[in-house]
Amino acid sequence: MSKVKNPSLAAAGKKELTWAESHMPVLKLIGDEFEKEKPFKGLTIGLSLHVEKKTGVLLKTLVRGGAKVFAASCNPNTTDDIVAAALAEEDPKNLQVFAWAGQTTEDYYWCIDQVLDAHPNILIDDGCDLSMRIHTQRPGQLKEVIGACEETTTGLTRLRAMEKDGKLRIPTLAVNDAYSKYLLDNQFGTAQSTLDALVRGLNILLAGKTAVVCGYGWCGRGIASGLRGLGANVVVVEIEGRLNTPDSGQHRAITALYSGYRVLDHMSAAKIGQVFVTATGNKNVLRKEHFEVMRDGAIMCNSGHFNVEIDEPALRAMSTEVKEIKDNVVAYKLKDGRTLYLLSEGRLVNLSRPMGQGHPIEIMDGSFAVQALSCQYIGTHRKSMKAGVVRVPQEIDDQVASLILKTQNVVLDKPTKEQTAYASEWQEGT
Amino acid sequence: MSKVKNPSLAAAGKKELTWAESHMPVLKLIGDEFEKEKPFKGLTIGLSLHVEKKTGVLLKTLVRGGAKVFAASCNPNTTDDIVAAALAEEDPKNLQVFAWAGQTTEDYYWCIDQVLDAHPNILIDDGCDLSMRIHTQRPGQLKEVIGACEETTTGLTRLRAMEKDGKLRIPTLAVNDAYSKYLLDNQFGTAQSTLDALVRGLNILLAGKTAVVCGYGWCGRGIASGLRGLGANVVVVEIEGRLNTPDSGQHRAITALYSGYRVLDHMSAAKIGQVFVTATGNKNVLRKEHFEVMRDGAIMCNSGHFNVEIDEPALRAMSTEVKEIKDNVVAYKLKDGRTLYLLSEGRLVNLSRPMGQGHPIEIMDGSFAVQALSCQYIGTHRKSMKAGVVRVPQEIDDQVASLILKTQNVVLDKPTKEQTAYASEWQEGT
Amino acid sequence: MSKVKNPSLAAAGKKELTWAESHMPVLKLIGDEFEKEKPFKGLTIGLSLHVEKKTGVLLKTLVRGGAKVFAASCNPNTTDDIVAAALAEEDPKNLQVFAWAGQTTEDYYWCIDQVLDAHPNILIDDGCDLSMRIHTQRPGQLKEVIGACEETTTGLTRLRAMEKDGKLRIPTLAVNDAYSKYLLDNQFGTAQSTLDALVRGLNILLAGKTAVVCGYGWCGRGIASGLRGLGANVVVVEIEGRLNTPDSGQHRAITALYSGYRVLDHMSAAKIGQVFVTATGNKNVLRKEHFEVMRDGAIMCNSGHFNVEIDEPALRAMSTEVKEIKDNVVAYKLKDGRTLYLLSEGRLVNLSRPMGQGHPIEIMDGSFAVQALSCQYIGTHRKSMKAGVVRVPQEIDDQVASLILKTQNVVLDKPTKEQTAYASEWQEGT
Amino acid sequence: MSKVKNPSLAAAGKKELTWAESHMPVLKLIGDEFEKEKPFKGLTIGLSLHVEKKTGVLLKTLVRGGAKVFAASCNPNTTDDIVAAALAEEDPKNLQVFAWAGQTTEDYYWCIDQVLDAHPNILIDDGCDLSMRIHTQRPGQLKEVIGACEETTTGLTRLRAMEKDGKLRIPTLAVNDAYSKYLLDNQFGTAQSTLDALVRGLNILLAGKTAVVCGYGWCGRGIASGLRGLGANVVVVEIEGRLNTPDSGQHRAITALYSGYRVLDHMSAAKIGQVFVTATGNKNVLRKEHFEVMRDGAIMCNSGHFNVEIDEPALRAMSTEVKEIKDNVVAYKLKDGRTLYLLSEGRLVNLSRPMGQGHPIEIMDGSFAVQALSCQYIGTHRKSMKAGVVRVPQEIDDQVASLILKTQNVVLDKPTKEQTAYASEWQEGT
Repeated sequence: MSKVKNPSLAAAGKKELTWAESHMPVLKLIGDEFEKEKPFKGLTIGLSLHVEKKTGVLLKTLVRGGAKVFAASCNPNTTDDIVAAALAEEDPKNLQVFAWAGQTTEDYYWCIDQVLDAHPNILIDDGCDLSMRIHTQRPGQLKEVIGACEETTTGLTRLRAMEKDGKLRIPTLAVNDAYSKYLLDNQFGTAQSTLDALVRGLNILLAGKTAVVCGYGWCGRGIASGLRGLGANVVVVEIEGRLNTPDSGQHRAITALYSGYRVLDHMSAAKIGQVFVTATGNKNVLRKEHFEVMRDGAIMCNSGHFNVEIDEPALRAMSTEVKEIKDNVVAYKLKDGRTLYLLSEGRLVNLSRPMGQGHPIEIMDGSFAVQALSCQYIGTHRKSMKAGVVRVPQEIDDQVASLILKTQNVVLDKPTKEQTAYASEWQEGT
Repeated sequence: MSKVKNPSLAAAGKKELTWAESHMPVLKLIGDEFEKEKPFKGLTIGLSLHVEKKTGVLLKTLVRGGAKVFAASCNPNTTDDIVAAALAEEDPKNLQVFAWAGQTTEDYYWCIDQVLDAHPNILIDDGCDLSMRIHTQRPGQLKEVIGACEETTTGLTRLRAMEKDGKLRIPTLAVNDAYSKYLLDNQFGTAQSTLDALVRGLNILLAGKTAVVCGYGWCGRGIASGLRGLGANVVVVEIEGRLNTPDSGQHRAITALYSGYRVLDHMSAAKIGQVFVTATGNKNVLRKEHFEVMRDGAIMCNSGHFNVEIDEPALRAMSTEVKEIKDNVVAYKLKDGRTLYLLSEGRLVNLSRPMGQGHPIEIMDGSFAVQALSCQYIGTHRKSMKAGVVRVPQEIDDQVASLILKTQNVVLDKPTKEQTAYASEWQEGT
Repeated sequence: MSKVKNPSLAAAGKKELTWAESHMPVLKLIGDEFEKEKPFKGLTIGLSLHVEKKTGVLLKTLVRGGAKVFAASCNPNTTDDIVAAALAEEDPKNLQVFAWAGQTTEDYYWCIDQVLDAHPNILIDDGCDLSMRIHTQRPGQLKEVIGACEETTTGLTRLRAMEKDGKLRIPTLAVNDAYSKYLLDNQFGTAQSTLDALVRGLNILLAGKTAVVCGYGWCGRGIASGLRGLGANVVVVEIEGRLNTPDSGQHRAITALYSGYRVLDHMSAAKIGQVFVTATGNKNVLRKEHFEVMRDGAIMCNSGHFNVEIDEPALRAMSTEVKEIKDNVVAYKLKDGRTLYLLSEGRLVNLSRPMGQGHPIEIMDGSFAVQALSCQYIGTHRKSMKAGVVRVPQEIDDQVASLILKTQNVVLDKPTKEQTAYASEWQEGT
Repeated sequence: MSKVKNPSLAAAGKKELTWAESHMPVLKLIGDEFEKEKPFKGLTIGLSLHVEKKTGVLLKTLVRGGAKVFAASCNPNTTDDIVAAALAEEDPKNLQVFAWAGQTTEDYYWCIDQVLDAHPNILIDDGCDLSMRIHTQRPGQLKEVIGACEETTTGLTRLRAMEKDGKLRIPTLAVNDAYSKYLLDNQFGTAQSTLDALVRGLNILLAGKTAVVCGYGWCGRGIASGLRGLGANVVVVEIEGRLNTPDSGQHRAITALYSGYRVLDHMSAAKIGQVFVTATGNKNVLRKEHFEVMRDGAIMCNSGHFNVEIDEPALRAMSTEVKEIKDNVVAYKLKDGRTLYLLSEGRLVNLSRPMGQGHPIEIMDGSFAVQALSCQYIGTHRKSMKAGVVRVPQEIDDQVASLILKTQNVVLDKPTKEQTAYASEWQEGT
């Protein structure tokens, strides 16, 4: 049976689900197809995702396809409790939810374990905690799993490290790496949701602020662009070299520079920033040495997956007083009189309640369309897939993009025969 | 002996070369190294590039490295005659140039042949005409060639088609595909130089104009962004599917859409555009059916490599009068009274004289740094390289990016040990 | 005695006030001065403003200056009840508040009347309802009023119409028209708060949406710029001619056009818009004829002062079903099956609870600094001021701007003597 | 008889005039009207304007209206000699031109004097030199002059200083201050033409450059926006206080800040800038103390009217070598080894030949439409106008804006009766 914070919130949650559904036309088309073909008949799908309205629509779509669905949150603080309540009520035979906002680590893994107790055949992961759990705690169940999907850059980094160490035993589709996902979700989704959280939580003016964006991957460049769009003066920070990225930090830095941003080393940026947003996928990006030089009143938040990007323990250790002055806004009073603010405990600000409400609905329509079709693919290709991180097939990626355009009434021409021929021609020159 | 239009222009050309050199610090550092190490000692390098001041600095850098250098233009109309004159005079023993603006096709290939007569060991190509010529006309010389470099998306498309047909017999470094090249040159270089050409050649206002960008690859997105930066209302046109691109036209279209541009099919765009810029790498993108519906006074130009993107012969056939009304601006008077304008005969407007002056100097500093180091790589790896299109080694790509940042005084931090470790770690989760 | 919704919310409201105060350094400096000089000793100030945290800081600042302060809301739906509770508790002898969210028109004027019952000597108005009320209902009290301040474009339009009709009997400072107010508050404040309300209330993606901005005054151009900053494709609508504006609609239209927006007539825009924002200060800007052609799912909201810009009664009359589907989001189901959405009943979306939380704090710091100093000016110039709309003195306007810069650590040079002389010199030419 | 550099260039100049005419539809419509009504019959118009193709179209338009026209340049270096040649040939009985590029100060005033020798009845001035000359050297002719028009902010500053000193004896229409002029010409025209000059003259990359804009009036904000549009990182410099501006430097500074630019004092900006553009209308904005701290290779240019904004004599005095390294690019080699570059001797870079080609054609169509109609107004109101600086009548300003929109096919709705009524209504409130 589902476990949520307050089942009586279901009516309000249902309104949210309905609103989300009305803005997820791609998932609707896919669900219509699923309902006819029941690709998941006899299969159990276990998920660890941010449990909120858009995720709810994905869960319902999978149920339409014949699956039994068990979902936990992928973060202790991002569940939308009214939506969780509505989902718990929706179709208890086929859909169970174990999630609430404000979990302890024990709560968190208890929920994950509920999902695993259902013996899922397909996993959908956001950050890789579910897959990790089954690999490390329940290796015996691995043989029941025909495949998995991973939603985030962070999760894929972990999975590739596992694969490199020879430990990954499930075929895992790299949903994050589909163009239909990262170009849109990471870039445009994270930007809008991060700005939304900042503005909503603090009511501060972004125009004129010196805003430091740590990490200039797809998330970072979206955030930088959005901040500039509202009048902030953006500083970008990158590292030298490559940590699990195709291009180097240098290339990212030059791109930022030529886009008109200032690019500074971390310490120089720390001294001048008024707002900091981390989106690196790495650890202790802002740390003691930076806190020591920050301006009084500086505001820090994180849009990366895990709450390790800002070294909160170090900040706490430096403070004479730590106080939540507004919902999810904690003031750290330092010995020298400065106050630094950290949002949502350094967890992803764009999803942490009540500040964040997650990505825009239409964005998740695209991302979850890739998830839904990837699950279907796993179902139909269960025999041919091997353990390891696998690209989402190009056909799925292109199909989702076509559906997004179609539902937005954008029409593209097909290339002419002559153009297709020219593309594989090499003798025609000057 | 070099052949240029007017050797007496050398003094003016020398000024241009000096100005360019003072803004190409990366090539300067590389040249200093070359001068010490003479990596090209005993080697002849043949080039087919746009012969203008930045190319001149590359040629001189290769000479510093001990090469004998023979250069032709890669386009009949892009040579800067004063620079060509200066280069011809520079160091006749080691550097010969065969190039002038306004060539016939016969002239063009005559120059290419002069370069091949020098029996080059390394080829540098821009659009692949030099490589094509040696493969088709002088296969006997192929064994003398240890490797080649290709500068453009267009050239690589041809080379990959050749490779697929089993015809490519030289190891060829895909210089275009280095991040240090396409992210900067294609995106930022083409944007600025295309706008420069348009504004300079026509003195028209871009603000308020409906500008149609055909093709939303790296060139197209730079051009779109630049046009918007000057106040144009930008419409993007893409195709459905993939013609030699990693992502589909659909993904490009959504990216354009979410960046705030309108995305339309070709015919709808043709009806409303006031300025058209093509950057697709394909053929007859604008053609009879589009000319028929365009607004009176519409202006068309091309920033793609070859002059096939706009179907000039069709336009000419539809016209009652064809007249060059300004340098490189041709008015096509149609039967129905409308006049359409085509710039630079549909050749790449950002390089065609006198309208275009090519990419900004600093951009070519980066692109040609990749060329210079790729040549060096070919020299030192001559034994291990096999025929086919080869990625530029990551070390070269990163090194050039580092040098660009260094010469711009941008400092990046290295990741901490902890961060490097975290990047290959997978067990640390929520 | 104050009347608010729920006095027990005071503690939460106090947190909000504290947060706001920490981001209103200009008002802090002015309050410090007031506390020393007590410019309002013996004076009663009556206000009709949006009662929320920033306004609370203004009220407290006036109390610091020795005033007795009585405040009502200027809108039935914009009161932040937790802040109202905190203000009611703050200093009951000197500060009384009559405001709550969700008022009927009767409630609304009852609150206004409480303020007038206190026999204010200075009025601060936002939309002119307080001034209107005293002129029409309590002319006898007019002689007790030494002056007033008006915050909005809309209020000034009404006041100037009154003045033209010979009915305005109070000297009224046009606070809205101070550069320190309208350049910042109308342009940057309205933009951020409107986007915040849209995104927060709906969780929709702005990127890629066709967004129609009706009215291209300072509010409209800020909104348009912000929407574009988040990836919307913006269409601007203006009228021909001048309705209480220095420049004509034509000039605004050309400025919008040359800024890269599309400019369309209302009907053409109605057909393509997905999101509509009105900011005209006029009436029935969107009306039956436009509702008839809008796309299914179109979303409408208003950022102008009064709820007359979108003809809600007409929309209601066209509908077969009217239903609040989320807080402050009403769906109008039309006979032909389309659904249109109206936010916050057409009241200013950026302030209507719970969607809107008003302008960014720092913006109101500037606007209310003008209010505070204008009140002080009224106090000290009570004898010399005549009935009518009066410009805010340039010294106040410049002083506030200087304080804003100072608190943001921006330093400007003074002109040199030579430059000052040159500015009044005319004989030095070519 | 006209005096130009080389009459044989007329054919080429005619091509330029024809191109310009085809993009000046507003002036065409006005000229058609003039041709019918001959408003200037019997009148002589003397002009001092930048003599290039767009000005040529204005001159021809005035001739169509029946005027005898005599034109000199308003700057020693901005004449387009090929256009001047074409104009000299055009209609010698009614149109004479005295202008060439590269004049000495003596040449310059000789040309002005030729115009005055024609005993003009109406003056059109750009920078006020013509009006100044007649006031100071030929006061006897003042009674023949029925009115004048001034094109620039700089000229109006001089005229208002004259008026304040009681020396202005001609009614002078402030053409610059018409919305149809300064909103478009100063903001969008100067931006595009300044960028064009920079890019064309130097071929440098703007992306990633730190660009300092001195002065944030309408010219400055256009330039800043254009630079950002091409990827520069823009720093704005302003002064504290007001020198002939409605708003203070503080207000301009905050607007720049909230638009996302950095705002710095002059000295801080001088230390970091790579490109400097002045547009202040004042003197010695960049001077010795700034040159002393600038980065090696810094580039300076001016887009303000007079060549006094950058203190060239001081720069020269500091230099060990001064050398023109390219057309209109002078390198100043300083004692400490740094080299600074000054473009076009500090004259307005966007008009100085060969770098600048002036504003976009469509912009001048609007500005010169105001000039043409203002001249007509002077003709018809000669009796009622008094000496002094006079606003351009609102009807002319609005008419030009309407014509611009009309020729761009933009349709605006008229306000409804109800809306017009509402705009003068004050009793309707909440």
